[in-house]
Amino acid sequence: MEYTDATSQEIDDVMQEAWIAFHLYRKLPLKQRAAFMRAIAKEMENLGDEILKIAAEETNLPEARLRNERTRTMFQLTSYADACERGDWLDVRIDTALPDRNPPRVDIRKMLVPLGPVVVFGASNFPFAYSTAGGDTACAFAAGCPVIVKAHPAHAKTSEIVASAIFKAAAACNMPTGIFAHVHGAGNEVGETLVKHPLVKAVGFTGSFIGGKQLFDWANQRKEPIPVFAEMSSINPVFLLPEKINKSATDVAKLYASSITLGVGQFCTNPGLIIGMESDELQTFISALGTEIKNTSPGTMLHPGIFKNYVERRANSLAQEDVETVAVAEGEALFNQAAPTIASASGQAFLNNPVLHLEVFGPYSIVIRCKNEAEMLEVVDKLEGQLTATLMATENDIRSHEELVEKVKNICGRFILNGVPTGVEVCLSMQHGGPFPATSDSRFTSVGADGIRRFARPLAYQNWPDELLPDELKNTNPLGMWRTVNDKLTKDKITS
Amino acid sequence: MEYTDATSQEIDDVMQEAWIAFHLYRKLPLKQRAAFMRAIAKEMENLGDEILKIAAEETNLPEARLRNERTRTMFQLTSYADACERGDWLDVRIDTALPDRNPPRVDIRKMLVPLGPVVVFGASNFPFAYSTAGGDTACAFAAGCPVIVKAHPAHAKTSEIVASAIFKAAAACNMPTGIFAHVHGAGNEVGETLVKHPLVKAVGFTGSFIGGKQLFDWANQRKEPIPVFAEMSSINPVFLLPEKINKSATDVAKLYASSITLGVGQFCTNPGLIIGMESDELQTFISALGTEIKNTSPGTMLHPGIFKNYVERRANSLAQEDVETVAVAEGEALFNQAAPTIASASGQAFLNNPVLHLEVFGPYSIVIRCKNEAEMLEVVDKLEGQLTATLMATENDIRSHEELVEKVKNICGRFILNGVPTGVEVCLSMQHGGPFPATSDSRFTSVGADGIRRFARPLAYQNWPDELLPDELKNTNPLGMWRTVNDKLTKDKITS
Repeated sequence: MEYTDATSQEIDDVMQEAWIAFHLYRKLPLKQRAAFMRAIAKEMENLGDEILKIAAEETNLPEARLRNERTRTMFQLTSYADACERGDWLDVRIDTALPDRNPPRVDIRKMLVPLGPVVVFGASNFPFAYSTAGGDTACAFAAGCPVIVKAHPAHAKTSEIVASAIFKAAAACNMPTGIFAHVHGAGNEVGETLVKHPLVKAVGFTGSFIGGKQLFDWANQRKEPIPVFAEMSSINPVFLLPEKINKSATDVAKLYASSITLGVGQFCTNPGLIIGMESDELQTFISALGTEIKNTSPGTMLHPGIFKNYVERRANSLAQEDVETVAVAEGEALFNQAAPTIASASGQAFLNNPVLHLEVFGPYSIVIRCKNEAEMLEVVDKLEGQLTATLMATENDIRSHEELVEKVKNICGRFILNGVPTGVEVCLSMQHGGPFPATSDSRFTSVGADGIRRFARPLAYQNWPDELLPDELKNTNPLGMWRTVNDKLTKDKITS
Repeated sequence: MEYTDATSQEIDDVMQEAWIAFHLYRKLPLKQRAAFMRAIAKEMENLGDEILKIAAEETNLPEARLRNERTRTMFQLTSYADACERGDWLDVRIDTALPDRNPPRVDIRKMLVPLGPVVVFGASNFPFAYSTAGGDTACAFAAGCPVIVKAHPAHAKTSEIVASAIFKAAAACNMPTGIFAHVHGAGNEVGETLVKHPLVKAVGFTGSFIGGKQLFDWANQRKEPIPVFAEMSSINPVFLLPEKINKSATDVAKLYASSITLGVGQFCTNPGLIIGMESDELQTFISALGTEIKNTSPGTMLHPGIFKNYVERRANSLAQEDVETVAVAEGEALFNQAAPTIASASGQAFLNNPVLHLEVFGPYSIVIRCKNEAEMLEVVDKLEGQLTATLMATENDIRSHEELVEKVKNICGRFILNGVPTGVEVCLSMQHGGPFPATSDSRFTSVGADGIRRFARPLAYQNWPDELLPDELKNTNPLGMWRTVNDKLTKDKITS
């Protein structure tokens, strides 16, 4: 480790600067925030291929994947910049005065304003898209908040270089000095000091349950608790319904073999649990999935810590009573390489053993064989909150399993039909967040421009003259925004 | 107390019923939820004058005020029902499939869905509007959640009768049995059991800081933490700027005397802190306010517990070093009657003494005399989060005190110019929520239809055929709702 942990004094200096920057940055027009975000995207591109090589060295991810991830990161920055400027996310509501009502109603106008400095903890598995200049940072900048990134120690150099791109963009756009800061911290102390600093007003995190829950607890133990959006843990259950499996067991198996092994299984949306009902066709599915997985190769994981966890948790899961190993990738696994693995267990075994409910981060999936629909319903009742849940089902299946469909819907943030949970589209309709422990607050998303709202709160202006209101709330609607005026959505000017 | 505390077993029974009801209620069309809410309003009206008499006995509030409060409660129910049905709050976002893109984009459609059973703790100071059938209950029903109300022990009989109106409306509308439940609990145990019950998914609360913070902590200590919206504590600072005070010290004093004493000061938006800059005119304001307050009469408080707190906290505030008593209402105060009181202290005294920052719930206000603007800025920096902040200011004042205006804006949820904070309009633009400790989550409001969102979370449907989607998301837009389709707000149908 060539970087030293930030001291408490350094963190305090950084936070004081962020606080000053906050008061300047939040007054800037949306257009300027958006220009800054676009400049960051540009500087990310200007880093050229060099950054891909460095990131590949640090994370063991292939350059092609990293190139795509950088493109995605730039798209996040530019598309959230567009959304920021469009201003729909501000949720402008205006109720004009009713002087003749008894009692009279005064003029009230509401819009979202930024919370304050946001601390972002980068993810090990997305060195670009959910790290230094990733989704949380982009949303916080759009909301009007300065950002303090704690570099992920597993890709500290990549983080340092991406930070330099943000600093460059900030300088080019004449942003206040404290708009962005980048600190290192290999242990827990830096994280704790950051989350507990009184000038921090929100936290964004993507990573493990233990890490995210710790940040959540620290934030709630503060004298002034602050919101934490932690994306933590999900096993992304997939339900195989009978007619679908009867028709296409082998195709579904092929589809899932590739989803399970994509990126060496290191996605928060990796399907770790596949639930079907006992039948010959389910056996066909399991065999076909096993055959596919045997033919895959072990893949290099992000870092030895994640590898160690994979090895231990997989072994623990496979060692449970009534768990059978269906298939392990046949190629030889070197140190730090994960061998994709499929296991299987009965519905009863799953119901009786909470160990089987735990996420095994990596290319591991367990197929649960329920003896009937009633048992499948019991399995759903045992599941915790999930980022995603998937049904592999025909329309008949859906119509004839209504209770199952309703129960599954209630535990996830994204409900997929006949697809795979891996691959998270960056768009406004995306929900990347789900009931606890998938995330710490299911009411928000960390992907898509709606994520901006995590870092903003409504402020109502009561009885202000038009000329003293922010442009977003002025009668003439100079920014041409959608606003709800007297309960009606409109872009119209307000005429008195 | 004629009601007995609910036992753990009774609470569990209630929650099991609520859970069953949840799965039925959340599938009902918005129109049916709205009809249920309107039926509750109707049944509230059918309670006639009898309920006003009972509430007056329990709360010592005048019948006229209670009549208005009931009307307001009915308006909340019917206007949130309208908003529920309109569906803007669902935040529908649709991104249609792009099969020709590389890689192809699948169809994704998102809307808000209810969290689950909500526990509501009624407020002592609003036996109708923020209690049994009050704002939290209305928002939860609109969101699609069953509600369990814990009656406020200070108006348990009123609560019981209002609950009977809700039961009647539920029966008339064929609602599932567990859609609503009403339990009593004089001590903390019932509250703790409710908040910690695994089937409870959110909490609404209006009351003291100690009460709200306790619920918040319990909710975060659960295995599955749940959101708590607690409206807790606010001293609602009012800033007197020089030109305004030079012009109209006496008028401002009269306006504030009536705001401070309204409802015996028992509003969460009562102005407890008035901050000016030393000048002859500020002295004029203080004297005039004192004269007005002397001429008011002591008023009967809600219950002896609140009276005891008022007496003790007022005494504690007045006993602090450098605090002067400016005026006390001259009429004789009987037991349980609060004498409106004005105190005054220097800016330095306020800065040095955190006791002066505490809320004294009741008709008590302290005027802080800052020696200059710099000291006023220091005072703002010491203030915690507030529901409201008010400027009494001319346009010149605003323009020449930009730093002050910006700092004040950052600590409140509602920013009032030349008015009083008491009186909370029920409309979409209202923000009744602010930075901690005003509320536990500044990103939400407890007044206005945006409060519905406290109890809902986004759910994205990926790759579902049109006929299996809920009506809100169907191509034809059968409910005629505003939706964001491919980043554009529209009511149009989607044609493929």
